Amino acid sequence: MKIGIVGLGLIGGCLGLDFRALGHQVYGIARRPETCDQAKARHAVDFASTDLQTLSACDVVFICTPIATIVPMVKQLATVLASSTLITEVGSVKAAIVAEATRQWPLFVGGHPMSGKSEAGLDAAEPGIFQQRPYVITPLTQTQPEAIATIEKLAQQLGSRLYRCSPEAHDRAVAWISHLPVMVSANLIYAALQERDPDVLQLAQQLASSGFQDTSRVGGGNPELGLMMAQYNRDEVLRSLKCYQSEISTTIEQLEQKNWDALAQKLTVTKAGREPFIATLPASSDSQTSAQTSG
Amino acid sequence: MKIGIVGLGLIGGCLGLDFRALGHQVYGIARRPETCDQAKARHAVDFASTDLQTLSACDVVFICTPIATIVPMVKQLATVLASSTLITEVGSVKAAIVAEATRQWPLFVGGHPMSGKSEAGLDAAEPGIFQQRPYVITPLTQTQPEAIATIEKLAQQLGSRLYRCSPEAHDRAVAWISHLPVMVSANLIYAALQERDPDVLQLAQQLASSGFQDTSRVGGGNPELGLMMAQYNRDEVLRSLKCYQSEISTTIEQLEQKNWDALAQKLTVTKAGREPFIATLPASSDSQTSAQTSG
Repeated sequence: MKIGIVGLGLIGGCLGLDFRALGHQVYGIARRPETCDQAKARHAVDFASTDLQTLSACDVVFICTPIATIVPMVKQLATVLASSTLITEVGSVKAAIVAEATRQWPLFVGGHPMSGKSEAGLDAAEPGIFQQRPYVITPLTQTQPEAIATIEKLAQQLGSRLYRCSPEAHDRAVAWISHLPVMVSANLIYAALQERDPDVLQLAQQLASSGFQDTSRVGGGNPELGLMMAQYNRDEVLRSLKCYQSEISTTIEQLEQKNWDALAQKLTVTKAGREPFIATLPASSDSQTSAQTSG
Repeated sequence: MKIGIVGLGLIGGCLGLDFRALGHQVYGIARRPETCDQAKARHAVDFASTDLQTLSACDVVFICTPIATIVPMVKQLATVLASSTLITEVGSVKAAIVAEATRQWPLFVGGHPMSGKSEAGLDAAEPGIFQQRPYVITPLTQTQPEAIATIEKLAQQLGSRLYRCSPEAHDRAVAWISHLPVMVSANLIYAALQERDPDVLQLAQQLASSGFQDTSRVGGGNPELGLMMAQYNRDEVLRSLKCYQSEISTTIEQLEQKNWDALAQKLTVTKAGREPFIATLPASSDSQTSAQTSG
């Protein structure tokens, strides 16, 4: 299959490496000629160019650019692609993209391969990062079954765990497990920084251990990524944040009223309730030494 | 030195192993005779007994029992110890213990070795877990300098990083970096479980990755430990929770008003602001594969 990849960053590079290994022909597009050269040198593409016209003979094109540029890119591609070419993309929000992109290009299929690394860019690309990871396909009711089947087959070839749902269900689910955690975690750091006593703040920084490290990790990440989640999945992030705010208020009430039974009950629910969220994940981070004494 | 250890769980067992290796004589106390036998078999103690009287000749006694039993244990020890014996303990909150324990026993020094493991109990005890970890000593103004010096010397022998502050400063600092994260993290899990659409909840569970795993880890821990933090450090946990609640409200307002500049500013502050909290920690959990695509 002839596969086009627009945007040769981490995800675009990883897709190129895997698709070439699977025997597909990969056509890469980057804005800068140096990135094209780098992608060829890393064998992430068979051909690379700064000119979208290069993709005119492709069967499928993956848009791997930042969310804000996906719909504009579909419009550009619509002027150069054969009408039989499928377009898909890898954005981490879907409702804001899929409806408009489908209006621009009927053979559009939204998708979200949920893999990544903490490092960004083509330099960090490596083979096999999609294996055993979720790949969510988010078609509309009018999306052609053959188009869905083609994208799903490619995702399966990558070794991903395949899911199919509406763009709205995707966005609501990832708000809970990806976007809300960023806001929860960032505000933990921000609140701690509000400590007025500089000696206490310094002591807190000196005493912080794996508990604070883990809870604050995603809140101390790339600010642009967090902002993008909030902007493009605003309604669902707001909905989850308001539910979360209400639960924080309940916990405050329980402490104020010394309602220890209710707090114990909540903590018992969360201990058991976490399990289904981490059932398929490696236990690495969970088995590490904890910062708590038993006292 | 003759060192008594009351409570042969994880921390008591670890202290025994390290103090014996340092050449001290260790006298262990457990409620159950089987625990005494186990501690001897593991070479965590030189002598073990269920009878506090065994400690009458000790120079220092470490109380390593749960927080609720520390002050009652000081009262019991006061009836059997020589008046020259120092008492210290390893509880993770200090103000609720130190003032009352000092009233009961003038040669009392509060302390908090901030080491631990996710597993509890004597079985999990191992040598060296205090090395390079914080050990906070929390004397009162009336605490004898010689008593403080003795406990600090023992903590140094364990290889710990030594800190000294008031019980109140300790409790405020650990509220930020240990107790607030538990409440923040538990409420993330609890809020996600409020999702009404069972298909979306199941999808969220299937898609959850390292971001959710890390942010939810301490909130899915031992409910008794979380409850204990709230009960014994109630004022400071409440204070930190209210500050956190206010920050969550601000984030909600920023999303509602599409005040992206302010949100971007906050996320930029948290990225930089996290660094001093994790500067001395191993980067293991931070370098792991992230769940975010760059899209």
